[in-house]
Amino acid sequence: MELLEQRIIKDGIVKAGNVLKVDSFLNHQIDIDLMNEIGKEFKRIFADVEITKIFTIEASGIAVAAIVAQYFNVPVVFAKKTQSINLDGSVYSTKIQSFTHKRVYDVIVSKKYLSPDDKILVVDDFLANGCAAEGLIELINESGATLQGVGIIIEKGFQDGGKRLREKGIRVESLAIIDAMNDETGEIKFRH
Amino acid sequence: MELLEQRIIKDGIVKAGNVLKVDSFLNHQIDIDLMNEIGKEFKRIFADVEITKIFTIEASGIAVAAIVAQYFNVPVVFAKKTQSINLDGSVYSTKIQSFTHKRVYDVIVSKKYLSPDDKILVVDDFLANGCAAEGLIELINESGATLQGVGIIIEKGFQDGGKRLREKGIRVESLAIIDAMNDETGEIKFRH
Repeated sequence: MELLEQRIIKDGIVKAGNVLKVDSFLNHQIDIDLMNEIGKEFKRIFADVEITKIFTIEASGIAVAAIVAQYFNVPVVFAKKTQSINLDGSVYSTKIQSFTHKRVYDVIVSKKYLSPDDKILVVDDFLANGCAAEGLIELINESGATLQGVGIIIEKGFQDGGKRLREKGIRVESLAIIDAMNDETGEIKFRH
Repeated sequence: MELLEQRIIKDGIVKAGNVLKVDSFLNHQIDIDLMNEIGKEFKRIFADVEITKIFTIEASGIAVAAIVAQYFNVPVVFAKKTQSINLDGSVYSTKIQSFTHKRVYDVIVSKKYLSPDDKILVVDDFLANGCAAEGLIELINESGATLQGVGIIIEKGFQDGGKRLREKGIRVESLAIIDAMNDETGEIKFRH
């Protein structure tokens, strides 16, 4: 997505350790006009499949999910990170490793909001090692819902999350895929 | 807001301890159509003031902030809860007591995203004891930005957060104010 790549080049900051900071427009301050263009693009890409719910994980996935959902006319459900799972049988749960925060989260979603009839589009801001997406897919599988695809704003193509998901036959659509970044020159190389 | 009160009566669940569960439409699963009506209503209410940014706190404030921001044509900034403040001087920080989670959070916002020129509308899903709103207002004050008002979806009028903020001269506009709830009968009494 040209507009997104231009914005990443303009405002993204490459840091050591393959970190890309996009918090001026994507996940701390949010440019809602850009987010709407992203929503339209996901609708265009996934126009051929039925979607009944947009599914994401707190916190930074929520903004993109809320805006994207407008173009599909469906509700958003977001999985919650928790420190104390209430194991009363009312939730689906899994564990997700966060490399950014160097810890493991318990992640839950109420059984009320994912059902076998649901056709799910997972959206998130980033895809890197794929742990968050795989956790969400596990919750979908537990529920019996159908995963229609995964929509990602920025994929770090030099990490193996996207490759692993696609090898499982999952439809992953990333609006920008970065093949390489250089924190000394600031250069960002996109896959086309 | 009539539509919101009707929805709370229809789908809200009153639990012991003055807990109101609205997670089927507001903060776990999100009804985006309702959220858009909420966005329009906040724009109508705050049409008389200049707003340059919508400010909220992760996680459940993000969806309402993203949708509301569309009606004001401004960016969203969300404060982050963190466990380890990086005290490098790049952030404004405060502490917020969460009664729901029985702990104290460090809450931060990058200095880059709140400036003395900003005119801020704080939005959040709930106002009860007011700790989250007060924390956000403290961050705004640290930055030198101007607080134009606080927009709340559901205020628990029987707790003193709203009263305390209004006594300080802060403009608080809540779309639904609950004066009493009964977890045995399920009855919810709104202020009009």
